[in-house]
Amino acid sequence: MRHRSYRWLNALSPVQLIVIFYASAVLLATILIGLPLSHQSGVTLSFIDVVFTAVSAVSVTGLTVVPTADTFSTFGVFVIAFVLQFGGIGIMAIGTFIWIVLGKKIGLRERRLIMTDQNQTTFQGMVKLIKQILALILTIELIGFLVLGTYFLQYYDSWQQAYFQGFFASISATTNGGFDITGQSLIPFKDDYFVQFIHMVLIMFGAIGFPVLIEVREYLFAKTEERRFMRFSLFTKVTTLTFFLLVIFGTVVIALLEFQYFFADKKWHEILFYSLFQSITTRSGGLSTMDVSQFTEQTELVMSALMFIGASPSSVGGGIRTTSFALVIIFVLTFARGQQRIHIFGREVHNDDLNKAVVVTIMAVITVSTSVILLTITESFPLTEIIFEVTSAFGTVGLSLGITPDLSTIGKVTIIILMFIGRIGILSFLFTFKKEKKGNYHYPTERIIIG
Amino acid sequence: MRHRSYRWLNALSPVQLIVIFYASAVLLATILIGLPLSHQSGVTLSFIDVVFTAVSAVSVTGLTVVPTADTFSTFGVFVIAFVLQFGGIGIMAIGTFIWIVLGKKIGLRERRLIMTDQNQTTFQGMVKLIKQILALILTIELIGFLVLGTYFLQYYDSWQQAYFQGFFASISATTNGGFDITGQSLIPFKDDYFVQFIHMVLIMFGAIGFPVLIEVREYLFAKTEERRFMRFSLFTKVTTLTFFLLVIFGTVVIALLEFQYFFADKKWHEILFYSLFQSITTRSGGLSTMDVSQFTEQTELVMSALMFIGASPSSVGGGIRTTSFALVIIFVLTFARGQQRIHIFGREVHNDDLNKAVVVTIMAVITVSTSVILLTITESFPLTEIIFEVTSAFGTVGLSLGITPDLSTIGKVTIIILMFIGRIGILSFLFTFKKEKKGNYHYPTERIIIG
Ligand SMILES: [K+]
Ligand SMILES: [K+]
Repeated sequence: MRHRSYRWLNALSPVQLIVIFYASAVLLATILIGLPLSHQSGVTLSFIDVVFTAVSAVSVTGLTVVPTADTFSTFGVFVIAFVLQFGGIGIMAIGTFIWIVLGKKIGLRERRLIMTDQNQTTFQGMVKLIKQILALILTIELIGFLVLGTYFLQYYDSWQQAYFQGFFASISATTNGGFDITGQSLIPFKDDYFVQFIHMVLIMFGAIGFPVLIEVREYLFAKTEERRFMRFSLFTKVTTLTFFLLVIFGTVVIALLEFQYFFADKKWHEILFYSLFQSITTRSGGLSTMDVSQFTEQTELVMSALMFIGASPSSVGGGIRTTSFALVIIFVLTFARGQQRIHIFGREVHNDDLNKAVVVTIMAVITVSTSVILLTITESFPLTEIIFEVTSAFGTVGLSLGITPDLSTIGKVTIIILMFIGRIGILSFLFTFKKEKKGNYHYPTERIIIG
Repeated sequence: MRHRSYRWLNALSPVQLIVIFYASAVLLATILIGLPLSHQSGVTLSFIDVVFTAVSAVSVTGLTVVPTADTFSTFGVFVIAFVLQFGGIGIMAIGTFIWIVLGKKIGLRERRLIMTDQNQTTFQGMVKLIKQILALILTIELIGFLVLGTYFLQYYDSWQQAYFQGFFASISATTNGGFDITGQSLIPFKDDYFVQFIHMVLIMFGAIGFPVLIEVREYLFAKTEERRFMRFSLFTKVTTLTFFLLVIFGTVVIALLEFQYFFADKKWHEILFYSLFQSITTRSGGLSTMDVSQFTEQTELVMSALMFIGASPSSVGGGIRTTSFALVIIFVLTFARGQQRIHIFGREVHNDDLNKAVVVTIMAVITVSTSVILLTITESFPLTEIIFEVTSAFGTVGLSLGITPDLSTIGKVTIIILMFIGRIGILSFLFTFKKEKKGNYHYPTERIIIG
């Protein structure tokens, strides 16, 4: 019997296994979040709302159908923080860690699974990579927890409250979870630039991509003579440049579009921090220092476009990912110049990677458009609010113009599916129903990670 | 002096020349439509409205800022019909025809120009092609004129009126011009299925692509023994299949989405004809048997998506074109199956064609999204109405939810640019600013025409 189930598992492709693992995580999260122990006394949650919260947490999106602070008990908040951690770092990373701790041998098959989950194209160093990711993220979170918790002492009556807030805020920001237990995101800290700065740094650590963090860490800890021989990978260069260009673009556009509206009575530093924070949060963070529904429609649509692009691959974020966006734009520009081969930073881009980027982008446009039209049928909200909600779910961002709790059941199911697709990536989603082919896993070394 | 200007002309790429020719046509149309002789007495038109009408006619879009029947004199209506004819069949086709009539020798350079305008990839038979196009379109229009004019005798008081209506209706339908002189499109004929049927046939003749018409004509006129050796080109198969699949898809979706709304009190044949006509008209026709603003928001968004796709290449229509859409979808499906090479109808698609299709689609998504966001800044209409207007202009369709006359000047300029890009094609637009390279015009024979 056990033998048979093993053979059934072996017939699945790595992508199918990843999807099954994420689905199992959703199931586990649903059970934990559905426990009466997780709710405040007197609160009852409908099944769809429990599933919604579970998927939102596993996919580190942060869209909420119920106010977290008023609905969940302290135990429930810990459960959500745990699920965010689980979803954010990736089930496979944590799974590998457990295997290592338990002294299990990591075979080729397990390595391949991890490879797929982290979008890596080579087997080598996978286990080392996972260890590094875990160490890095936990270190970042610990520092965030200590800094924020200590700083929050001035805001809260007891040290327990302050460090509890710091604990949750650090995890929610670093995993880009987007959940809050303040009841109104970061609006209570709209004038506290220190809190905002720490949050921006933590969000960027989560959204910029684990391989980038690891390369930067290796560079920083290397000896001076070693550094001369080190070079950053093509992936790190492309994704980091794109990431920061998008942040700058978002900041400038939000500032310009709101200059006469939301920013009309604001000081220069308020305009800077509001624009910068809301630009960074569209990469995947989902926390906000203001009620984004106060922005004009045009700003909300630009933010939707930014959320559609999303964060870096191999990060806690979703969307089509920065590399897909960069490759597709560079492809169009190269084509317009009448050139055939695509070069970035003196390297030629592999045709397979370009194809992946194009497929991801086209599939994403179709998925998002179809979802928007479906929601115009089932919901009665203005189109802008629906587009914002759909791109926020697909980008696993978690910002909302406020319609999430009032969605119909079909609307909630649609958003649940979008968050799930956003997390596993649209390519994985596409390959879920595909039979595995042998020999697909040997590629040359200098490749770019796509969506 | 003359020599110098010739050298300047020779330095331009074919695409640049085509754009200059179309721009000249807009200039000529602007002058003609701006003539007081073209207006009814007492009517004064602003400059931007004259330019808008001129571009709308040259690009055979049919969006109008002023009601055609109430604004233009009989002379003005003839001018518009003339400009529609000019724009619809293509300036180069008419230009070649004039060259032929004037006994001019058609050299390689001129052939190449025509080639670019008609999206053809080989020089051979270009002149013959243009002659065939002109003969075909004029024959179709003549038959349309006679049939409609004669049939209209029952609707109008005098035979002059009936045949004048028939003349304009036949040109407007065949060129997919979308203009009407009834004052309310085809709504007066909403119960006359004969008029609707003739219009649908004429619209399809214009939108299905000239090469398709010519191949079908050759096939029909061939002897039985010749037919056995004839085969339709890959282009004809792909574009025709896609065209009709889109028509069927549109009909079914409109019928389903409006079943409980606009169609709630309609009989089955009304539902069929309303759905079918509005589906066909989104290919590029622009005429309508109803006020499309009576449809639900979801139907309007589906129609926007259909208008974004548009008509066949080398037709009077715009959009990303049926071939781009088909190739991109087939590319995604092929990729999802893990295959490398793209096969349609037993032929392999050339990689260059696929690249073109992808670039067209990506560029179109960016152009349309940017225009929509720009219009949300300058206009105060609901987002759905703006999306509908923008895709209608880009697809040179000409349907509107009624906001065209009330657009701001920036809004009108945006729509003007979109109609122009829609007509010349987004690839031509992309290459307008590119210097020509030698040796770009030799391709293998079995190619597909893209966008
Ligand atoms: K998030
Ligand atoms: K039209």
